[in-house]
Formats: sequence, structure tokens, C-alpha cells
Amino acid sequence: MSVLQTDHYELTMVSAALADGSAQRRCVFEVFARRLPNGRRYGVVAGTGRLLDHLADFRFHDEQLDFLRRRKIVNDETVDWLADYRFRGDVDGYAEGELYFPGSPILTVTGTFAECVLLETLALSVLNFDSAIAGAAARMVTAARGRPIIEMGSRRAHEDAAVAAARASYLAGFAVTSNLEAGMRYGIPTAGTSAHAYTLLHDSEPEAFASQVATLGTDTTLLVDTYDISEGIRRAIAAAGPGLRAIRIDSGDLHVLGQQSREQLDSLGAADTRIVVSGDLDEYSIASLAATPVDIYGAGTAVVTGSGAPTAGLVYKLVEVEGRPVVKRSENKATVGGRKTAVRRHKPTGTAVEEIVVSQGTPEAEPGDRILQRPLIRGGERVADLPTLDGSRDHLRECLISIPWEGLKLSQGDPAIPVVVRS
Amino acid sequence: MSVLQTDHYELTMVSAALADGSAQRRCVFEVFARRLPNGRRYGVVAGTGRLLDHLADFRFHDEQLDFLRRRKIVNDETVDWLADYRFRGDVDGYAEGELYFPGSPILTVTGTFAECVLLETLALSVLNFDSAIAGAAARMVTAARGRPIIEMGSRRAHEDAAVAAARASYLAGFAVTSNLEAGMRYGIPTAGTSAHAYTLLHDSEPEAFASQVATLGTDTTLLVDTYDISEGIRRAIAAAGPGLRAIRIDSGDLHVLGQQSREQLDSLGAADTRIVVSGDLDEYSIASLAATPVDIYGAGTAVVTGSGAPTAGLVYKLVEVEGRPVVKRSENKATVGGRKTAVRRHKPTGTAVEEIVVSQGTPEAEPGDRILQRPLIRGGERVADLPTLDGSRDHLRECLISIPWEGLKLSQGDPAIPVVVRS
Repeated sequence: MSVLQTDHYELTMVSAALADGSAQRRCVFEVFARRLPNGRRYGVVAGTGRLLDHLADFRFHDEQLDFLRRRKIVNDETVDWLADYRFRGDVDGYAEGELYFPGSPILTVTGTFAECVLLETLALSVLNFDSAIAGAAARMVTAARGRPIIEMGSRRAHEDAAVAAARASYLAGFAVTSNLEAGMRYGIPTAGTSAHAYTLLHDSEPEAFASQVATLGTDTTLLVDTYDISEGIRRAIAAAGPGLRAIRIDSGDLHVLGQQSREQLDSLGAADTRIVVSGDLDEYSIASLAATPVDIYGAGTAVVTGSGAPTAGLVYKLVEVEGRPVVKRSENKATVGGRKTAVRRHKPTGTAVEEIVVSQGTPEAEPGDRILQRPLIRGGERVADLPTLDGSRDHLRECLISIPWEGLKLSQGDPAIPVVVRS
Repeated sequence: MSVLQTDHYELTMVSAALADGSAQRRCVFEVFARRLPNGRRYGVVAGTGRLLDHLADFRFHDEQLDFLRRRKIVNDETVDWLADYRFRGDVDGYAEGELYFPGSPILTVTGTFAECVLLETLALSVLNFDSAIAGAAARMVTAARGRPIIEMGSRRAHEDAAVAAARASYLAGFAVTSNLEAGMRYGIPTAGTSAHAYTLLHDSEPEAFASQVATLGTDTTLLVDTYDISEGIRRAIAAAGPGLRAIRIDSGDLHVLGQQSREQLDSLGAADTRIVVSGDLDEYSIASLAATPVDIYGAGTAVVTGSGAPTAGLVYKLVEVEGRPVVKRSENKATVGGRKTAVRRHKPTGTAVEEIVVSQGTPEAEPGDRILQRPLIRGGERVADLPTLDGSRDHLRECLISIPWEGLKLSQGDPAIPVVVRS
């Protein structure tokens, strides 16, 4: 990450604000979504951990300062200021894995105008991408009803976005990823099967299967649809024996093929051999396979592109200047300035009923309320003991249990709970 | 970029193929699209330059080898082989900025199985993302009919993907980007305007405008829709004089506001002050503004998410082993194995009529044919004198002139020209 992965105007605004002194005004910026994409019922906060990692390195180095000077993007005074820049303010936010709804203040950045405005583009890039992926992935996990999903979409995403997508889908409950860098960087379990190329490389399918089993053992997944699937399954069990871990089917009518394959495997004595299905699976096609005797889903394109919503639409807005709420007049009426405090209210049964967001104050506490924001950065330093990726994964699972059951429906509708904003 | 930004199975396939000797078989892999997304008329090859940059660094280092060993992803023999790995084969491909259609062999990778299969995920990640962006951006450029477009979508894309998106949209004819890293890394011109936050930071809109002009001069763009647009325009010209370079409108009915703003600017003597419009613009909304007196478009979300097609759907397929064509049986009939050679055939007028793709041979030459593939890597080394980004940008412009006029329509339809595959 380079500090120049930002918008030109962030720096020119800093330049003008430094000149007139407004750069030092105390400001509050908030990240929120005006709406959820495509009639979704909830959003999933994701990327916060990656953002905090980036902020630790968010400094201007000589190469970047030289570029700004050479291109005359900002004046020399600003270049000098940037050379000394580091974020010394505060950041609060919803936990990673927390749900959000339209108006939820998922990230709050406090500090001088200049130090806060510089974070806008990076904060939005990270949160918009990761939350888009996690939001789509969580729906697939619900649709899979406990069956594991492998994230295998790296090739359909920008090479670096692919790593973030693997992380976000694991956060959302995917079991493993095929992306090795995500395995190394974030400790996510990785897995792989085999490609059609491996079968085609060999002189025959039995030779390909024998070769794969010879090196990888029977705890492997054989891809059986390069030629004829039924013949492929017969050959797979012939090569590996009934202890073969799994077969994969990557094409065709997965419902019909899943049933036929299960029957065939059982008849071959391979009752424990699992069936992995893949091929442009999204939450809807996964849901439609609920009654099909398959065991593991492989999801690629749909998850890494947010299944129709490739960006979460989060915005980073100035809401307070020197303690005074500000709001753009062209906003719709529902938008309220001022720093917000948010709690989620629950029934005694634990079911969430609404989110209460109060501008420049604190919601009156009721039993069952949960405070949604927590300190992330204080005086430029990351606070201790932030949740791990696995902790965030558990948190999301609990959050999804807490919302009304309609909130888990795949169909389009209203947000699972309303956000009530009070000023 | 890390060499582990790849799929787990690429390495396990290499491991098994090393053990049985098939790793050394001479193979040809091809990258192509089975179809164009959403009834588009053409695709734009983009990312090749970035891919070649990555391949120069595509080596396994100790940290990565240790990870593979520790996690037991591959056996020790494979780790040793990977430690020595570098790609020593050949790569041929369509030029960046070239058009492609379903079946066009846009990249051909030749070498041993093991050395070629390792490139699959990276090659597809880069080409799928960049081509998705360039394909969408090119349609916007056509829709803009010569008016410049600013790429300002960084915040809606993964932070690294944003830099690639800026590059791909510049390749496709965008005038500038807001992404400073893209400016530094690729020499793309950058530009920026101002955010609503800048106006809200100040005690009044006139103070904000005066401050911006004081530092940035009148060669700047004032954002006039924070409060009342008509008042904003009056204040903008009051602050900067009629020599103000531009105003920006980011909300509302851009057709109506564009007309009113033009009239108002003219009446204020600011006939040369340009009007920048932005706010979720895509190729369709840009086209609908053709008759509106605005000057510059700002495109964000739509371009960086491929305007409904966030990935190009390119695949990397084994087509030849030791000189023998191979093809998966479950493919549709049109798929042909073997290394392909492609030419684009033109009428004497210069209009393209079809693409001829021959498996394991060369199309019989006709006047007006253009050979589409060129050497990119020979024996692992990048060939000299590959086109610059500006050269690729010019090439795309010429290609778009050469296709039948229906090919530039935004509506859904067939590919602009057919691809005829012969074996």
C-alpha cells in the first residue's frame, strides 16, 4: 500500500485548508451506507482489520513527496506538512463481522480536518470492497445450511483484491480458500482440488487419477467431469479406492448429477466420499441445491464480485466541525449531522429489534442494548486486544442468529431491522 | 505481488506432475472468453503490461517456501523445484488495447506443463479485472462523444484494484484519473475537484470558495451543489471571476441542472467556465447527456466495477500437449483444441468483417488481414519494444474506428464481428 492510493482532491483540499487555517479545525467524519444494495436485508462490516494495518504505514516517503512536488499537485508548504504527516486522531467503529443497516455509523474518525480527510479514499476502498464481499458471502453461507464452502474466485478478481476477498469470505463463514497468499497472510485454511488441465495433460483419465493419488494420497479431490462423469466416478474409485476423500463436479445440472453421483458412489462402497460441486455458484444456486446430496460448495466469480453488488456503497462524510453538526443541504431529510452513538436494541429473547443512533448524545440505556462502536485507534495508536479474524467470524455468526428470521431471506426486501436516528 | 497469489491446486498439480514426469511435457495454454458479458459487442484486452511486470518478479522466496513446507501443501521435492522456478517459456498475445470477441486467443503461453500452469491464476486475475474495466470504460468514452471523462472511482474499488482501474480506464480513453498512485506509477495525468466536506468545513460557502481559489488559483473546479446550486454558481464566479476553470455538480437531474448552469454561467460572463458533472454516471447516463451543455464527466462506481460486468470471464485452458490438441469433452462443439493463430480480416475500406482463428496452422493471407498475436516473452525474457500505455490507448481508438458501426451501440446484441475457428 502506498499513501498515494488516494484521490488527488484530498491533497489539494489539505493544501487550501492549510493556507487558511481551517486544516486544524476539529472534525468528525463518519462512514455509513445510505442504502443496502439490491434489496439486501443486512450488510456485514469487513475490512476494518486491513484498514488498521494500512494506517500503521500511512506515511509519505521521499518518492511520493518528490512526485507531488514535480507534478505541482500541491505547493511546497503542503509537501513539507505531508512529510511530517501521521494520523494522530481517534478512530471508533463497529467490530468486524458486525451487521450494519442504512445509516449505521460503522466508522467514526476524529481529528483535525487535514489529518482525517486524507484517510477518506483508503478507508472507503478497503471497507467498500471487503464489506461487499462479506455481505455476499454471508448470504451464501446461510444458503449452504451448514455445508462448507470453498472460496475459489481469485482468478475472477484483481490479484490483490483476491486476497482480501478470501479474507472477507472466511470472515463471513466460508470454510477455506484456494488463495495461498490469504493462507499465509491471514492464517486462513487453504484447499484445492484439481483442474481439467491435469486430466488432459495425461494420456488417459485413469493415468491422471493414479498420478494424483500417488502423490497426494486418497485425502484428495478428483475432478470427474473432464469426459463422462459416471465413467469418471468409476475410475476415481478404481484409482483411489472407497476411501477417496471427494470428487468434484464443475459443470452440468448439479442437482441431477449430484443425486446420480451419490447413488453411484454408494453403490461402489464409497459412502464416505464427499461430493464437491462448483461452477458459477451464487447464493441462489446454492440454496437450490439444499435437497441435493452434495457435501461441499465451491464458489468463485459470484463471491469475489459481491454477487451483483461489487461495492458496498459506503460513504465518508464530514458530520461535525468544532463541535457543530454539519450536513449537506441536498441530502434527504433523514440525514443528520453530528457524531453518532449507536446501540442495537434486543428483545428479552435476544432478537434484535432496532438500531438506535443518537447525534451528539447517547441513547438512553435499556436492558438488552448492545453498544456497537468500540475504540480502534486513540491518538494515532491502535488500541490493544482487537478481535482476531476468527473472533470476528464468530461474532458475525452470533449477529446473524440475533436478527429476525426474515432478515436471512435471500429475496429482496427491507433491512432486517430499522435504524432510528435521533438528533 | 507475491507468487502465492495463486490457487492451492496449481501447486498440488505441479507436485503430482513432477512425480510422474508429466510436468515436463510441452504444453500450450490459451486465454480466451467463451462469451462477452451482458450482450456487449466487443471486449478490450487490458492488463497485459501489468502481467508482464508481475512475471518479471514471479519467483518463490524463502518466506513462501517455508509456508508451503510448514503447511505441507506440497512435498519437499516440489518445494525444491519451486525454489528454482522461473518461467522460461514463451508468451504471445493480442496487444493491449486490441479488441476481442468470444473465442479470440488473447494470450498463448507455451512451455512445460509445470511452468505454464503456475501462471494461470495470476494471468487471469490481471486480465479479467483490467479487461472488465477497459471494456466498460471504452463504452463510456464512446458515449461521451469526445467530451473528456475523469476516472474518480478509487473509493469504490479495492485499494490496489483502484490503481489498475485507473490504468485500464486511461487505456480505454479516459482523460485523467483522480488516483495519485496511478499518476506516479503509470504517468497518467491526475486531476481533482473538491468535496462537500471542504465547503462544510468552512463557516460559509463563499469562504470555502475564496479559500480554494486563494491556494489553487482560478484554474480549479468549485463544487457548487452543497447548498443551493444557483447560489453556488453565483458565489463561485464572485470568488474566482469569470476566468474560473470549472464548476462541478454532483447530484440532482444533471440534464436540467446542466442547462440552467450553462445559462447562468454565460449570463455571468463566464462563457469559458466548464461544467463537470458526476454522480453514479455510467455509459447510459453519459449517453443521455449528449445534448446537455456540460463539458466533462466524472465516472466512479460504474467504471471501477465494470458497469455490471466486474470480471471479464476469461479462462486459461490447456489446448495442446506435446503437439497434440486436447479439449474437455464437456465443452460445447465450437471449442477446438490446439494452438490457435488469429487474424482480423478487413474490407478494402478498412472495416473489420471477421476474425479468423486457425488451430495448428495459419490462416491463408488475404489483403487487409492483420495478424493479432505478437511475441511478448521469449525463453522467459520479455521482448523489446513493447507498446507504451499511450501507444495502447491509441491502438484501441483505431480498433474502435475499424469495427462496423453497430459494434459501438450500447444496446445488447451480437459481437461486432464473428470469430470463425478452423481446425
